[in-house]
Amino acid sequence: MRIHLQNPIDDPLFHFSRAMWDAAAVKTGDINHHVTIGSTETDFATAMAEAEALVCDAGIVKAHFPCPAPHLKLLFVTNAGLDRLALYDWLPPNTALMNNRGTHAAKSGEFGIMAVLMLANRVPEMVTHQRAGRWQKLWGAVLSGRKITIVGLGTLGGAVAEQAQRFGLNVTGVRTTATPHPHCEQTIAIDALDEKLPDTEFLVLACPLTDRTRGLMDRNRLNLLPRGAGIVNIGRGELADQDAICDLLDNGHLSGAVLDVFTPEPIPEGHRLWTTPNLVISPHTAADDPATYNKRSLDIFLANLKAYQARQPLPNLFDIERGY
Amino acid sequence: MRIHLQNPIDDPLFHFSRAMWDAAAVKTGDINHHVTIGSTETDFATAMAEAEALVCDAGIVKAHFPCPAPHLKLLFVTNAGLDRLALYDWLPPNTALMNNRGTHAAKSGEFGIMAVLMLANRVPEMVTHQRAGRWQKLWGAVLSGRKITIVGLGTLGGAVAEQAQRFGLNVTGVRTTATPHPHCEQTIAIDALDEKLPDTEFLVLACPLTDRTRGLMDRNRLNLLPRGAGIVNIGRGELADQDAICDLLDNGHLSGAVLDVFTPEPIPEGHRLWTTPNLVISPHTAADDPATYNKRSLDIFLANLKAYQARQPLPNLFDIERGY
Repeated sequence: MRIHLQNPIDDPLFHFSRAMWDAAAVKTGDINHHVTIGSTETDFATAMAEAEALVCDAGIVKAHFPCPAPHLKLLFVTNAGLDRLALYDWLPPNTALMNNRGTHAAKSGEFGIMAVLMLANRVPEMVTHQRAGRWQKLWGAVLSGRKITIVGLGTLGGAVAEQAQRFGLNVTGVRTTATPHPHCEQTIAIDALDEKLPDTEFLVLACPLTDRTRGLMDRNRLNLLPRGAGIVNIGRGELADQDAICDLLDNGHLSGAVLDVFTPEPIPEGHRLWTTPNLVISPHTAADDPATYNKRSLDIFLANLKAYQARQPLPNLFDIERGY
Repeated sequence: MRIHLQNPIDDPLFHFSRAMWDAAAVKTGDINHHVTIGSTETDFATAMAEAEALVCDAGIVKAHFPCPAPHLKLLFVTNAGLDRLALYDWLPPNTALMNNRGTHAAKSGEFGIMAVLMLANRVPEMVTHQRAGRWQKLWGAVLSGRKITIVGLGTLGGAVAEQAQRFGLNVTGVRTTATPHPHCEQTIAIDALDEKLPDTEFLVLACPLTDRTRGLMDRNRLNLLPRGAGIVNIGRGELADQDAICDLLDNGHLSGAVLDVFTPEPIPEGHRLWTTPNLVISPHTAADDPATYNKRSLDIFLANLKAYQARQPLPNLFDIERGY
């Protein structure tokens, strides 16, 4: 099979190398492919004339498609959330679109439990006092027995649930339907979220951005959280009303927030987020670990390639209708 | 036995109540004691005329002793580190001094691993960028396989080691002698610390402050840490050269620090710590959890009382010579 890996021009941290491909291919026995690696416009155009599989990030897809890709069967995008590629009308016919779900589990699980520990230990408040040069005793509490609600139980939310359960938190998972999850004490359907919010100490947003989840945590729903609750967002900024979060931090209703995603990104200079109290800003890197990212991505792509060649369902096939 | 619990005047979060005592006493079957609870000078003086056991914090000891306490057999101090009570010459003869080691395990284990996760996710750098209103991508990495060195394997360090091991870190414990520890891949004697420091990504200080550990991490030893290392201190500020830590954060040799203890405390207004980059300041509350602290303290005191009555060694007897 002719496979092309197109690297981002401006992001050397996430470059695929020949050695990386060889290591992954040897491991899975997938060594009989014709593989090209490129980073320029010309590399891309040349490769697309022949390529049957393309591996690249969403930025490259957005910049190049629609484009002639007469033999393309498999398009593996190295991001998990593909919301910025909607409406997907640029996708060549007969090409299967895949996302990179699964890659982010370890890193986002660790980031998620770190964020919850930071809320429990009141770190967002501490750094606010620190910024003011003010010593003020603030006591946290251990996680055991406390109540966490995790919206989304995919790679990200599932990994956070696993960590949360290990720390003895009482975990409620929220997803489309109330199907049980191995790391949740209970799962509820998204339609039942309003009843759960008043009983939530830590709210973690970890679901994909779709037409159903955009604006999910609007001002009314945020107001249902009890005084002192904390919020973590590792999904997408548009899942919540960002201004309402800032207001609830300003007036002390929320005790803290650790946010990794925003509207817009990058956060503009002078934006109120920069000075909102009891907020820790992470620059949309929660789920990414450059040290292991590309290696994991290739493993996942090769697993899908194997499935394709065996005429099995593709594990990472992207469902355009659902949006994830 | 006549037992007196003296509450701090200015710290309502850490007050013992009658209900709290009764609950602990019923649980252990220790219900036949004459127990008084007080908070004023008069309460203290009156109780001391009769008391055989006293439970109070180090501040109360410091304020009242030496004082007449003719029947005192057991003095249980509700702090773990008693360094501020040295040289212990105020202790009445025939009184056994106990500290509160063990109480802080759960909370300090969670704080410790949170601090390490914050370093691995580069949160100290993120909050520094946030303070400057600057969006800058910063990628962290997962903990698995990375190298942590924990100085002190008592309640605090042991709890951090347990968490670190669960996250797959390669844990080196440092203590007086190289006795193995169940949650450390290897333990080394304190004398071998210099050889280990260049091979340390995360350094956690969690030992008591004694004549042997004061100034342990001096400027020379701090310089032995590799570029990019991070440091956590949940022991005592005097364990390390604080100015050297600030210098190494200023010049970027250390990538970050999460410090809970300082010299002096409270940190004075205008002190350089407040503006040192890539530093997160916690106000000496890492190990304390008011929600569970007094309950745990009473459980530990009652276990010691039981040992005393059975003429067994006291589990929490404080070794004045060692200083912990």
